[in-house]
Amino acid sequence: MDEDFSRIVGNKQILFKGYIEGVPKESDMEFKLGNGMKLEAPKGSGAFLVKNLYLSCDPYMRGRMRDFHGSYIPPFVPGSVVEGFGVSKVIDSDNPNFKPGDIVSCFTGWEEYTLLRNTEQLRKVQPDDIPLSYHIGLLGMPGFTAYAGFYEVCAPKRDERVFVSAASGAVGQLVGQLAKLHGCYVVGSAGSKQKVCCFGILKASFSQFMHNIKYFPEGIDIYFENVGGAMLDAVLVNMRVHGRIAVCGMVSQAGIGASDQQGIRNLFSLVPKRVKMQGFLQSDYLYLFPRFVEQVGSLYKEGKITYLEDMNHGLESAPAAFAALFTGKNVGKQVVCVART
Amino acid sequence: MDEDFSRIVGNKQILFKGYIEGVPKESDMEFKLGNGMKLEAPKGSGAFLVKNLYLSCDPYMRGRMRDFHGSYIPPFVPGSVVEGFGVSKVIDSDNPNFKPGDIVSCFTGWEEYTLLRNTEQLRKVQPDDIPLSYHIGLLGMPGFTAYAGFYEVCAPKRDERVFVSAASGAVGQLVGQLAKLHGCYVVGSAGSKQKVCCFGILKASFSQFMHNIKYFPEGIDIYFENVGGAMLDAVLVNMRVHGRIAVCGMVSQAGIGASDQQGIRNLFSLVPKRVKMQGFLQSDYLYLFPRFVEQVGSLYKEGKITYLEDMNHGLESAPAAFAALFTGKNVGKQVVCVART
Repeated sequence: MDEDFSRIVGNKQILFKGYIEGVPKESDMEFKLGNGMKLEAPKGSGAFLVKNLYLSCDPYMRGRMRDFHGSYIPPFVPGSVVEGFGVSKVIDSDNPNFKPGDIVSCFTGWEEYTLLRNTEQLRKVQPDDIPLSYHIGLLGMPGFTAYAGFYEVCAPKRDERVFVSAASGAVGQLVGQLAKLHGCYVVGSAGSKQKVCCFGILKASFSQFMHNIKYFPEGIDIYFENVGGAMLDAVLVNMRVHGRIAVCGMVSQAGIGASDQQGIRNLFSLVPKRVKMQGFLQSDYLYLFPRFVEQVGSLYKEGKITYLEDMNHGLESAPAAFAALFTGKNVGKQVVCVART
Repeated sequence: MDEDFSRIVGNKQILFKGYIEGVPKESDMEFKLGNGMKLEAPKGSGAFLVKNLYLSCDPYMRGRMRDFHGSYIPPFVPGSVVEGFGVSKVIDSDNPNFKPGDIVSCFTGWEEYTLLRNTEQLRKVQPDDIPLSYHIGLLGMPGFTAYAGFYEVCAPKRDERVFVSAASGAVGQLVGQLAKLHGCYVVGSAGSKQKVCCFGILKASFSQFMHNIKYFPEGIDIYFENVGGAMLDAVLVNMRVHGRIAVCGMVSQAGIGASDQQGIRNLFSLVPKRVKMQGFLQSDYLYLFPRFVEQVGSLYKEGKITYLEDMNHGLESAPAAFAALFTGKNVGKQVVCVART
């Protein structure tokens, strides 16, 4: 009886309060101590119970906070636990493929413990000298977004001129490094001088870049687009013939209603320069994921790439960490550490 | 001596007056009776003299009226004869490949007679049952723009949903017909009800389309973009997953300074729908030109496609005909007939 009792815990959770417009704020989510939860996977369920170690804060999640059902992923349910990518440890399992102690990279809840039934977006992590949290960053969805977007959408050639915006972010920092390793000339921009200083590869802050295109006297072959808005407009008129723009995100526009947006005025440049502008999602390229983990994991182990994280500690800090994505406060991939083991 | 004298003519010309901003007007060009011109090709020049029969009015020419040297084609020279595509008859030749009486589709001057030296953009026309003027429309640059843009850029599949703007124009009218022949569902829009009525294929005027997307309840796979502005914004949010937008032109924006443009606000839609937006120029696809002439010429002769022209008569009418492109007055391909033979 003692044993059963010890396995009932209060499960701390972050709940989504309700649909929003504009920029996400810390107060759009709330911390709650859940009801007592039995720490076991029900027999016959095929499910397994995980303890969440690291949670990922990603800009795409803002799309799930709007009451819009036409996207590739449904909105959050008000009053329910926030969902996202995480690295978690199996505590109990009714699934023969997973046993207690296994580490998984998965789609999980923003809570201490989650019962997982769906193994679709789940990957077992082999412990090695790569930090566990990197499996939701460098070797997770953001890293794979960089990999698929750069190689498959941008189709880079050696010596091409590559510009990356939000280049200190979860995706941008890997794009810049992959482009350098590919033999490209690379310039990245970030939202502040502080971010620029953190990355040797970055040469310009947003405002520096906007007012000075000296970094590309002969124009830009590849633009990896993370921010949208005025930056995109400035880049459009500086693209080279047959240039490519991979549209990964437009975080500067995330919180702005369509009617308040500034609007892009230089799209006509696409025609004389024959530029291709391609929106993409990493999920269309999952057949490349094993190759990505192998290649980027090796590059990291060889010391050829680095990856900067902005780590918040404690589940309670998750709402503020997420909101900071949209005010430009974080430097590097934003992660929340719920527990180390 | 009589013969020599008879071969000196006053050569009527249309001159480009000077660089403009905004929408081209009739008064940006001027009619002039040129100096006496000897109707012969100088010996040893390799040139040949043509009588211009039909001249083409094309929206891209507006780009040459601005003092901007960074484009794929240099600006017009103020005070010089306007240049453009034409169908012309050889009068005298110092080039063994061309003899008097030959009909050519060429890059020529807006004047009665032109001495041609450059044969790069020139094609001999074999007389058959295709109207001569079609060689600057259906079988010329505009038709080829439609052909290359639709097949190469849009990469259409049977049963896909295709939307064409400016669908009564020189390019759009062929795109719509090729798409129908390809087995696509096609809706075109034009700037006025009058234009819509002229084309059985067209279903909506601009304003009808803008306020009612009922023609595409399940969204748009392919958008052949000729107008830009508010139409593009409306289309962006109605694109289907993996849709394609071939950016051929943006005639609605032609005369608007960047700072006055409305701006495109829905570009983020490219991401969740993974849409490709590709600017293109027909000149990148010239290796397909012979196949195009063969295929589209055959389709026309078989009665499977039609082509509507808006024909002005007399060189003097050319400036007004050109300006009408930007006010939406013309219906069909705008041509100026200088002489019938």
